[in-house]
Amino acid sequence: MSRLLEEFQQYLKKIQQYEYAVNLLFWDVQTKTPKLGQPANVDALTYFSTEEFALSTSEEMGRMLDALSEPKEYENLDDMWQFIVGRMKRDYDRNRRIPAEVYETFVRAKAESGNAWVDAKKAGDFSIFAPHLKKMIEMRREIAGYTDPGKEVYDALLNEFEEGMDSATIDRLFEELKQGLIPLVRQILEKPQPDDAAFRVYTDADSQKKAEKMLLEYIGFRMDAGALGETEHPFTTGFSSRDVRIANNYHEREPLSAIFSAIHEGGHGIFDQNVNPDYDQTVAGSCCHMGIHESQSRFYENILGRSKNFWMPIYDKLGEYLPQFREIPLDDFYREINHVRNSFVRIEADEVTYCLHIILRYEMEQAIFRGHVPVEELPALWNKKMEEYLQITPENDSEGILQDIHWSDGSFGYFPTYLLGSIYDGMYLEAIEQELGSVDEILAAGEIFKITKWLNENIHWYGSTRTPKEVIEAVCGKEVSAEPLLRYFKKKYTEIYSLS
Amino acid sequence: MSRLLEEFQQYLKKIQQYEYAVNLLFWDVQTKTPKLGQPANVDALTYFSTEEFALSTSEEMGRMLDALSEPKEYENLDDMWQFIVGRMKRDYDRNRRIPAEVYETFVRAKAESGNAWVDAKKAGDFSIFAPHLKKMIEMRREIAGYTDPGKEVYDALLNEFEEGMDSATIDRLFEELKQGLIPLVRQILEKPQPDDAAFRVYTDADSQKKAEKMLLEYIGFRMDAGALGETEHPFTTGFSSRDVRIANNYHEREPLSAIFSAIHEGGHGIFDQNVNPDYDQTVAGSCCHMGIHESQSRFYENILGRSKNFWMPIYDKLGEYLPQFREIPLDDFYREINHVRNSFVRIEADEVTYCLHIILRYEMEQAIFRGHVPVEELPALWNKKMEEYLQITPENDSEGILQDIHWSDGSFGYFPTYLLGSIYDGMYLEAIEQELGSVDEILAAGEIFKITKWLNENIHWYGSTRTPKEVIEAVCGKEVSAEPLLRYFKKKYTEIYSLS
Repeated sequence: MSRLLEEFQQYLKKIQQYEYAVNLLFWDVQTKTPKLGQPANVDALTYFSTEEFALSTSEEMGRMLDALSEPKEYENLDDMWQFIVGRMKRDYDRNRRIPAEVYETFVRAKAESGNAWVDAKKAGDFSIFAPHLKKMIEMRREIAGYTDPGKEVYDALLNEFEEGMDSATIDRLFEELKQGLIPLVRQILEKPQPDDAAFRVYTDADSQKKAEKMLLEYIGFRMDAGALGETEHPFTTGFSSRDVRIANNYHEREPLSAIFSAIHEGGHGIFDQNVNPDYDQTVAGSCCHMGIHESQSRFYENILGRSKNFWMPIYDKLGEYLPQFREIPLDDFYREINHVRNSFVRIEADEVTYCLHIILRYEMEQAIFRGHVPVEELPALWNKKMEEYLQITPENDSEGILQDIHWSDGSFGYFPTYLLGSIYDGMYLEAIEQELGSVDEILAAGEIFKITKWLNENIHWYGSTRTPKEVIEAVCGKEVSAEPLLRYFKKKYTEIYSLS
Repeated sequence: MSRLLEEFQQYLKKIQQYEYAVNLLFWDVQTKTPKLGQPANVDALTYFSTEEFALSTSEEMGRMLDALSEPKEYENLDDMWQFIVGRMKRDYDRNRRIPAEVYETFVRAKAESGNAWVDAKKAGDFSIFAPHLKKMIEMRREIAGYTDPGKEVYDALLNEFEEGMDSATIDRLFEELKQGLIPLVRQILEKPQPDDAAFRVYTDADSQKKAEKMLLEYIGFRMDAGALGETEHPFTTGFSSRDVRIANNYHEREPLSAIFSAIHEGGHGIFDQNVNPDYDQTVAGSCCHMGIHESQSRFYENILGRSKNFWMPIYDKLGEYLPQFREIPLDDFYREINHVRNSFVRIEADEVTYCLHIILRYEMEQAIFRGHVPVEELPALWNKKMEEYLQITPENDSEGILQDIHWSDGSFGYFPTYLLGSIYDGMYLEAIEQELGSVDEILAAGEIFKITKWLNENIHWYGSTRTPKEVIEAVCGKEVSAEPLLRYFKKKYTEIYSLS
């Protein structure tokens, strides 16, 4: 190994410590820090993020990256280190243009905004959150001006969460989907709907946690490299393939909510646990392409978790933890977990109307960044679009514009990745069935591990080293298209709702 | 404010961030980090502890402390800053002599030793822990050579946990106690003992957690400035008065264990939450005198928690969470929580034989640091002493020498502070009764908050700013003595066991 590479690795080790602290501070404030302790957490988070940023954008870093990019050094690097150097050089050149004080202000503002969002959501009062949202929008614009000068701001944001993705492609995919989905949803909603009262019975959080753990272990999440916590908005965070944390939220009268959040976050978690461990704590590890990441969480949650056969081998087990399900036949359970309805909350939505929830948010983000709609008008715009796509109007902002965490930390451009994930899922399903045979049969046999293994080998292992386009090309051998997802929806819901 | 003080405060703010990270990493590894994630936690802990140490012992720090100690600066400081500067100057002069690489090695060795202790305890195999224990002893000796040259090593260690305390004083106090306790325990054990089968019934961890929360809130631990977690060995850690964390351990067949650990840790927690908040995140905050700290945990656990009247107002409530207690009359409960027996595990021991457990550990530490007994011989020495004081021999090292966490991170000299705490408690009890009247009556009336308030105002508020001697002098107006504790034991147990 060259002395330069060794020096570079030493330097990265130091950065990793700051990144570890930042991850841990985030995990802790979301799952454990008491109310009065939050300001100290924000101070620490701001300090360590800023230090990490300073180390990542230092002259020294630039000198090392430049030297490692020289052909005589670069050609001697193995694939992994070539990727790391290339990726870090690109990020360095972008981030170096952000003034340190702007970055520090942004980090602190994000943390404060996150706390304000929690308060606003609890109080159902958008005005608590509005100034923070305004600040997030302004700062995102400002930062995009530094990192991507000359690029349209929203395209720059989209690209940050899904490399190589632009709004032209998303427009095409989402339009394709909208054309197919709007009539499908209309057809479904004309049909008689099942009674769901039996599913909304009081279920204590502890029982839900036990069921969650059983499900996570069943789908392949490993507890020796994982941990669980409780929070307001479910999320997964990975320190490395060896330490992946899932936080969930337990609603007393909606046990299905935590169950499907668990399977969803479990998909993220399984992804992170199965990246090549050589990539741990480097930019090659985990996966920065959120559409690809969401494709895994949503594959487990929907394609697998909302199929009848997924539950066959474990439905009795579920009834041990949540006794109400002992009284409910699996067929009724299956109908309920695919109960299509016009509802307010994205993360509680069925997989079909979910798409419309995302399209709404995508259009809201376009309104913010392209239409320059003022923050004060956003709640009304949200409600208007809910009316238009789902024919319902939120009673308050908590179930309207305040329901999601992502804007609170300025993650504009994140929402579309959920739907991109589902679009990829439609394509994976066809690829898996071609290679392994019927997914339904595999699930019925209790052999979900075969599917997990396939996903491990074909997707997870590569972490961040392939772009979304490269993943889809390698896994499916074709261009991205919404057709397979639409086919999946039509087949499944025609059967469930006896559509003609 | 002088520019120098401002500069100093800025510098301290930076150190506080590292300390915060170190605290959080410790909390996390004890309560959440999965097995495979531990090495990364150790790396981060080592890195941030070492950085904190470097900042605390830097030339710059020395320069500022020297300048602030000059009369013209010092006299303009308020009491709190005078204390902080004085304390930090003293610590600086001691710690500066420790070579940075020795400190770093010690931090890493501590973390590794802690993990090895957990493994050894689980496996019941001392040999897994022995090399780490040896290393801890050697390193403690080495470091004491730097910090306290010329001082006897064990006295230096004692002083680290209880300022101004030396082994001559401890010898006198412990001897006084031994003389009184050995005949008392003998008398008690000749009496018929209650049947305890009803107390060892299966109790799921979730119910224990609910009971714990109720108890903590009852005694005055505030959840808006507190958090709870689960761990192997119960502990409390405070980030500041605004963020105090308690971790507990739940034994399925020993629910009384978690109950009394909760009250014990709650005492530590109430202490930390009620220190003058101006002292937060400085050396004036929390309380570095462990005898004083333990005096609070043990006051709640024993003097209050093991009295009958403590339970009167809440015994029904306890039965709601732990239904087995509905079948047990309060009188029987009271007898059981004061059931004196020769048992193996310190933290499960009754308050009387507990004293002998501590005296044993104190003598073991003397054997290590004064008698130079080799590590390999320690388990046998432990067992011999158990035989001598409690007439029982541990079946394995897990319930023998491996049972306690403190040696695993090199905290030799910590154990005696538990018993010092109880000795102080005997004295506080007399002081409180003089001022507030009968503690029994206050408890029976459900007015424990009056006692908590008295402790807040007389002890907690001052954090680290008073030495143990000063606390005892201010609170009790006399020299420390084991007499009051002995009087308390004799009165209480004569009644419970109908001694003559």
